[in-house]
Amino acid sequence: MRQPSKKQNQNPNEKVKIIPLGGLEQIGLNITAIEYEDSIIVIDCGLAFPSDDMLGIDLCIPDVTYLKQNIEKVKGFVITHGHEDHIGALPYILQQINVPVYGTKLTVALIENKLKEHNLLRTTKRKVVKHGQSIILGCFRIEFVKTNHSIADASALAVFTPAGILLHTGDFKIDYTPVFGEPADLQRFAELGKKGVLALMCDSTNAIRPGFTPSERTVGRTFDGIFSEHKTNRIIVATFASNVDRVQQIINSAYKYGRKVVVEGRSMVNVIGTASELGYIKIPEGTLIDIDHLKNYPDDKTVLITTGSQGESMAALSRMASSIHRKVSIKPGDVVIFSSNPIPGNEKAVSKVINELSIKGAEVIFQDTHVSGHACQEEIKLLYSLTHPKYALPVHGEYRHLVAQKKLAESMGIPKENILLMSSGDVVELSEEQCRVVDHVQAGAILVDGLGVGDVGNIVLRDRQNLAQNGIIIVVLTLEKYSNQLLAGPDIVSRGFVYVRESEDLLEEARHVVDEAVQDCLDRHVSDWGKIKNIIRDSLSDFLWKRMKRNPMILPIIMEV
Amino acid sequence: MRQPSKKQNQNPNEKVKIIPLGGLEQIGLNITAIEYEDSIIVIDCGLAFPSDDMLGIDLCIPDVTYLKQNIEKVKGFVITHGHEDHIGALPYILQQINVPVYGTKLTVALIENKLKEHNLLRTTKRKVVKHGQSIILGCFRIEFVKTNHSIADASALAVFTPAGILLHTGDFKIDYTPVFGEPADLQRFAELGKKGVLALMCDSTNAIRPGFTPSERTVGRTFDGIFSEHKTNRIIVATFASNVDRVQQIINSAYKYGRKVVVEGRSMVNVIGTASELGYIKIPEGTLIDIDHLKNYPDDKTVLITTGSQGESMAALSRMASSIHRKVSIKPGDVVIFSSNPIPGNEKAVSKVINELSIKGAEVIFQDTHVSGHACQEEIKLLYSLTHPKYALPVHGEYRHLVAQKKLAESMGIPKENILLMSSGDVVELSEEQCRVVDHVQAGAILVDGLGVGDVGNIVLRDRQNLAQNGIIIVVLTLEKYSNQLLAGPDIVSRGFVYVRESEDLLEEARHVVDEAVQDCLDRHVSDWGKIKNIIRDSLSDFLWKRMKRNPMILPIIMEV
Repeated sequence: MRQPSKKQNQNPNEKVKIIPLGGLEQIGLNITAIEYEDSIIVIDCGLAFPSDDMLGIDLCIPDVTYLKQNIEKVKGFVITHGHEDHIGALPYILQQINVPVYGTKLTVALIENKLKEHNLLRTTKRKVVKHGQSIILGCFRIEFVKTNHSIADASALAVFTPAGILLHTGDFKIDYTPVFGEPADLQRFAELGKKGVLALMCDSTNAIRPGFTPSERTVGRTFDGIFSEHKTNRIIVATFASNVDRVQQIINSAYKYGRKVVVEGRSMVNVIGTASELGYIKIPEGTLIDIDHLKNYPDDKTVLITTGSQGESMAALSRMASSIHRKVSIKPGDVVIFSSNPIPGNEKAVSKVINELSIKGAEVIFQDTHVSGHACQEEIKLLYSLTHPKYALPVHGEYRHLVAQKKLAESMGIPKENILLMSSGDVVELSEEQCRVVDHVQAGAILVDGLGVGDVGNIVLRDRQNLAQNGIIIVVLTLEKYSNQLLAGPDIVSRGFVYVRESEDLLEEARHVVDEAVQDCLDRHVSDWGKIKNIIRDSLSDFLWKRMKRNPMILPIIMEV
Repeated sequence: MRQPSKKQNQNPNEKVKIIPLGGLEQIGLNITAIEYEDSIIVIDCGLAFPSDDMLGIDLCIPDVTYLKQNIEKVKGFVITHGHEDHIGALPYILQQINVPVYGTKLTVALIENKLKEHNLLRTTKRKVVKHGQSIILGCFRIEFVKTNHSIADASALAVFTPAGILLHTGDFKIDYTPVFGEPADLQRFAELGKKGVLALMCDSTNAIRPGFTPSERTVGRTFDGIFSEHKTNRIIVATFASNVDRVQQIINSAYKYGRKVVVEGRSMVNVIGTASELGYIKIPEGTLIDIDHLKNYPDDKTVLITTGSQGESMAALSRMASSIHRKVSIKPGDVVIFSSNPIPGNEKAVSKVINELSIKGAEVIFQDTHVSGHACQEEIKLLYSLTHPKYALPVHGEYRHLVAQKKLAESMGIPKENILLMSSGDVVELSEEQCRVVDHVQAGAILVDGLGVGDVGNIVLRDRQNLAQNGIIIVVLTLEKYSNQLLAGPDIVSRGFVYVRESEDLLEEARHVVDEAVQDCLDRHVSDWGKIKNIIRDSLSDFLWKRMKRNPMILPIIMEV
């Protein structure tokens, strides 16, 4: 690839900073600060779902300590699209950093739904930006460039800085024949490239997949095929609530084959409601019916569109599969379409739902019923080819996906030293001269459990893991003040350890071991409670390991009377 | 398909029973009893790894209550092949049911390795059977028929019963060009079909996959390609310890490209040792070196074959990836090949290891480096075509896979009513006349935690889940006997709930809530400890839910002095 010549918008003396603040390990915490002198803008503000070892955690939000420390500089959030992993943390973060939020129409509408739930609608400024329009925030001009994705109204952001143009793709694919609206604005990408792009931050999710992601329309054709093949069955389609175009296509097929449509699942109802109000989805009159009216139509005249395509245990489809949905029961002959791929980590949950559906006699279809919303290798290369960036800073994906994009960028002629894989908290300084990590700031994930934000940390998680694996044994005893005489106990109570009724002998032995340990302490006039507790813990722990090869948490409690 | 005419080996008046004893939900617990009058034989005896909700459980073994109740009938275990999910529970079950074990050479050798570990070698009779040979057990004759699979020496079992021939495929594929030994004995399957197969129990694992599983040899060609492309790098290959043919092919490529081979990981060393002693793998002299000698060779002259292809946290590759392996560190330039597909549920763990390897600068290759050991749709159809069974009883797979095989069987002309999807514990009675479930016996999974077999049940697991999600709060207080006066406490101790140091105010409030509840009880002269505990639990639980939307386990303990 040709080296970009020095372009008008780039000033070799100017430097701009890029600071990813989400946790790299926690996919979904998409939040990136762009800083120049006294201006900071923040691209996206996503939440992540907890990994398996984060027991009891509901979700993760980004640590924005750096933004709070520089609150006077922060001009606003600019949002690429309305998915949870790009907008989900806004209600939490806006309570700490109340700055305006900018995005396209559907994106802002979905954010407003969230703000309503958290009672933040009155206090949050937001502004709708159209594709092709720019906004000025501090010393930055930010242009929203049309892309395609698995939600409508997705944008790349071109950030015009004194040091040059930074281009962030958001999540994107290139769809020449989108279901709604226009294809990605490739001409504008080319124009930006001509002007000179200092750095490209490009979606890496599918960077290990060769080829080109198929158009969303291909799924519509599959639906038509399935609908025409199963004219006598009820059809249930599970997909992502936010995939408005997918829902549009299901509705199209339903209409074509004379079926009524029921939308089920809270998030699905919300998103489709919003999208329909704003004109992002067109539902022929009389096609949508209420779930309570389902019983008035024969099975072969209905389609249910539902949440639960990821096997989420509380989602509508999972509740139908396990017979706890209040209004829909799966029956033999039902055709259930999974219009989704399992997100890594959800495979087993999805299999479980498929098995439950199969046991109830439903036919389950999951082949060719989904296309990705992310660019594959050829699309990524196309974007590099159009924009000719000086620096490549791959974003969005696991580390191995970033590495895969790095290789693609190299194959497109970007010199190795101009490609940087950022880590969470890195302060990357960019100029015509160089691109390097100059500092590191606090960043990463804050865990949310119930209403508690950040009150569950590593110690608590380690305790939960230990409790989960082995349970707990509590040893209580009462000592007399001063004399240290044993007045009551030691008693043993266990939870999550063994089935007590069938392990009475073992627990009796354990009590005996503790008894001896305590008696020994008292005989030796050990008065330090810490020591007594340690001796109880060690002797019981030894006994249980030898007898059972198990290691429960042991918690001695001494009371004093 | 033609209906099989009445064949010599089938007697219309005789009935035989098939009883699957493993848990259908717990894939891996392969164990099936065949019963006729006073004879029972048992096909396979596998263990399963726990599902995600079985916290702290090490493994699951089948519930063999039915076999114990009929111990005098049980003639022996006949084993199809040496994988954990077919032999793993033997050391546990043989302690309860000491009967002889029959299998092919490698299978028996791998069983013997297990028996040694459990000190059962002296007390267990076992006998090696060759392919094509039969054994007589009670009123059954069992013939071992050659198949192919991802471990050598796999067999289908033809069980000749007074009611007709039952054919169990074990896990199988059809490999026309296997790396070791012969292709599956298709001629014998055809011959059995000619004689008349009463029922076919066929592997369903890949029944949803179209086509034909490629030959193991195709992977060898991929290895050659990778070795020739990376002549200057160290190569590390992770695969299943038991896939002897795969290891053979890695060794072949290593030898061809002048590299020394290190085998690493306990199970890998064990299996390869056994396979090599018995002649199932051929290692050119001087090729295998000890891991301690690795440092004497340049990187580009070495290959490591290692365990950990499923991301198992304690396996060799995972330890290398996370820098806790004592002898091997990953360095930039290393080429790591995953010669495996993630087993459903392991996807995230595998991704984690790949990311760690990528961060350390290794190139990770996982495309075209694996083929399945299970038959795809065309192979399954081939088997039906050769054997023309009267009844189809699909085995081995999730429910949805069994359903998929049912469809294949139907497409091959087996009447719907002759196909039965068995559930764990079903007693299926088969005769020329009919095939139906006539009874149901105790069956399923027994959980093993440490040395405890079956002492962790649903109550304990539910406690562990609760502890894992929310932690525990213990409330202790000491009352005076008779007077019921509060002598000490209530004290509050928590684990896995909140980070105590940063939540002192909350815990203080909680203590206050408990204090009031206890005081109220005492004022009202409530003397029933059960009631006092309930009041403590309810008031604290209410408080915590309102304040935090959390629901920890609350355990009140009252001591009496």
